[in-house]
Amino acid sequence: MTDYSSAIEKYTPSSEERKKLSSISDKARDFIDSYCSSEGIDADAVLVGSVAKGTNLKGADLDLFIRFDRKYSRKEMETLGLDIGHKVLSNGIERYAEHPYVTGFMEGVKLDLVPCYRILPGQKKVSSVDRTPLHTEYVKTNLDRSQLSDVLLLKVFAKSIGVYGSEVTTSGFSGYICEILVIEYGSFVNVLKTFAGWKGSFKLGKNEYVGKFRDPVIIIDPVDDDRNAAAAISRENLSRMILASKLFLKGKEKDFFNLERPMGPFKRDDRGTAIRIFSVPRPDLIDDVIYPQALRMKNSICSILEREGFEPMDSEVEVSDRVRILIECRRDRPPAFVLHRGPPVDSDNVLDFIETWRHRDVLRGPYIKEDRLYIDLKGGRKSIEEAVLGDIGPLNIGKSLNRYKREIGIESPDLSAEDPLLQRFLARGLF
Amino acid sequence: MTDYSSAIEKYTPSSEERKKLSSISDKARDFIDSYCSSEGIDADAVLVGSVAKGTNLKGADLDLFIRFDRKYSRKEMETLGLDIGHKVLSNGIERYAEHPYVTGFMEGVKLDLVPCYRILPGQKKVSSVDRTPLHTEYVKTNLDRSQLSDVLLLKVFAKSIGVYGSEVTTSGFSGYICEILVIEYGSFVNVLKTFAGWKGSFKLGKNEYVGKFRDPVIIIDPVDDDRNAAAAISRENLSRMILASKLFLKGKEKDFFNLERPMGPFKRDDRGTAIRIFSVPRPDLIDDVIYPQALRMKNSICSILEREGFEPMDSEVEVSDRVRILIECRRDRPPAFVLHRGPPVDSDNVLDFIETWRHRDVLRGPYIKEDRLYIDLKGGRKSIEEAVLGDIGPLNIGKSLNRYKREIGIESPDLSAEDPLLQRFLARGLF
Repeated sequence: MTDYSSAIEKYTPSSEERKKLSSISDKARDFIDSYCSSEGIDADAVLVGSVAKGTNLKGADLDLFIRFDRKYSRKEMETLGLDIGHKVLSNGIERYAEHPYVTGFMEGVKLDLVPCYRILPGQKKVSSVDRTPLHTEYVKTNLDRSQLSDVLLLKVFAKSIGVYGSEVTTSGFSGYICEILVIEYGSFVNVLKTFAGWKGSFKLGKNEYVGKFRDPVIIIDPVDDDRNAAAAISRENLSRMILASKLFLKGKEKDFFNLERPMGPFKRDDRGTAIRIFSVPRPDLIDDVIYPQALRMKNSICSILEREGFEPMDSEVEVSDRVRILIECRRDRPPAFVLHRGPPVDSDNVLDFIETWRHRDVLRGPYIKEDRLYIDLKGGRKSIEEAVLGDIGPLNIGKSLNRYKREIGIESPDLSAEDPLLQRFLARGLF
Repeated sequence: MTDYSSAIEKYTPSSEERKKLSSISDKARDFIDSYCSSEGIDADAVLVGSVAKGTNLKGADLDLFIRFDRKYSRKEMETLGLDIGHKVLSNGIERYAEHPYVTGFMEGVKLDLVPCYRILPGQKKVSSVDRTPLHTEYVKTNLDRSQLSDVLLLKVFAKSIGVYGSEVTTSGFSGYICEILVIEYGSFVNVLKTFAGWKGSFKLGKNEYVGKFRDPVIIIDPVDDDRNAAAAISRENLSRMILASKLFLKGKEKDFFNLERPMGPFKRDDRGTAIRIFSVPRPDLIDDVIYPQALRMKNSICSILEREGFEPMDSEVEVSDRVRILIECRRDRPPAFVLHRGPPVDSDNVLDFIETWRHRDVLRGPYIKEDRLYIDLKGGRKSIEEAVLGDIGPLNIGKSLNRYKREIGIESPDLSAEDPLLQRFLARGLF
């Protein structure tokens, strides 16, 4: 079995780092609390996230929430929140998630200052961030000190197999999910044993709540029965967790706690397929907004390629400087003819079918095969480029990407190119 | 509606022809009867087939059966039968169907002299030809004189759409089936109305007998409840009969009584596929023996082509001077890789699968997609010719064709070639 202690040592923050984080968050919190008090604002600061819970890995950010009383309107809260943020972080910039917040650096540590409403467990939230302080409370109350290293191991494990993080681009396990799992199953190893033996969709929570969801992973939020805390996790990432757990428990993989693993070896052999990379400029919006649109663009292009007979088989999406979509097709020219299946000869519309097709320009037929009519139709003669650029017009590829429809770049990548997207595609392995 | 009278006139034998057939068959029968009587052989001659029933088209052959008493052994019957045959036909040659018979010409008319046993309706037959005289009797008794022209029309109709004849190469409607259908439904038009409205498999006869068969067309033999008289008819020929009946009754096709219709127009456009003609010498055996073996050879070759990734789509078989099989494949090179689907990640054998494949020379993987493992395997690099000649060895392509396995000829036909097999393939239409 793997040596846990070295992994723990490697990724646990040093006592210096802890002290520094503690001192920065105290300083910021004290500043906010006294500022609010002197200005007569009914709000207080609270440290949330992994540092607050003691489950942070080395190099974690600080998340400080500014909790406003519910008497403030949304607009007031946002204005006051940004105001306070800029007071704390002179170098801060504004970002927008569900509502605006200020982010910046203090003594070299990244600090997010997020306004929210103060709610109690069971109270109706106004925005989803209002729930975060409750999550922090729940974990602080229920996670034993001795289990902190189990959460850390689980996070590192999930990270090393590429399933850590609830952002849309990862669709993986959040830190909070890792904490819930350790609280529920007791230890890192028990969590892995649970996944290793799991069949089908993963479910955790009372049946009456679990039954409301259809996601691949359903973990009812301990502070909100109506919420699936694991809604972000994709089927594929559940598969990765199950398989990695099996392999780890059998001692089959060499190192599940190495976050700097290089890309696996891969072949640049001719795949005998048609690989294209479709790209558009990346709009100035966060990944979580762009990524679903990139998937939509991918699906639109694939549906065109499918219809035109190029037989798309596989794909890979990248959202970085540009939105880039790699699609592998079985063929780069559509088939010269398409077999068109007509009705059975004993059906009522068989004569209409013959009448319809008899005088059209078909390659062969109508003819009888077994109990049906068939026609050999001439296939399309478009290239992949012509098909996609010609047919994408009426399709919706996402609110922010639609404007680039007419300028989709299409390249046929050289398999030997040093392109991370292409390399990730070629190197695809288990994790 | 079509002018029946001209069709009837065109294909009905003249009175001279009738007289001639009658005179020849009388002569042969009298000769056999008196020969048997003088030699003390308990056998008599009986005219069977269409001429005996008055349902013959122009240019029909004569079938004379020599009925032996059942006291003779099979060997005795065969020897005596051939003996008598050669006495009647000095130019006769021996042929072998279920047992040997003599065939030859008398005054320019082809005459088959077939030995059989004399049985009564319901009596157990020894060989299938013993039943033929009973068929003749049944039709003579049950078919009204006024229906003779209906049988003639039905035969010509079936012939013109290519479904007349119960030989294996045709797999169509025999003359006897045409007669049964007219007896059952009353007239040519009623038979067509029946087919035009038929759904699914065709069934005629009492349920208790029909239920024993699984053929596409089931017509219980009126002289033998345990026999499907229509067993030879293929699904495709039933389809042709159904569709032709619909078209005829709607007056949609110009001429269903023209037996000299030229091959329909066809295109020699590039089909973008790989067409090959595989051929072996034709053994000196009748079509009914060779044809099923040709189908077996076709299936063997198709299974190799399928397995090696050439994607066979369609075929055409010809048994003439050689046995020739045209096969159309989607591609003439196998794909460079094959997607190999592994087990679901939550199954018990998933680790074995990884162990098995991890160190093999694969193009990519194992990797996870949705809830399963996949591998991209390198595809074959064989040509169609290499694949078929290399892999046909262990396969059985039929008793008489196996000896030619190593010398299968393979040609890539030029689409503009004047090859009847290729042309039939390209011209494939409704009938």
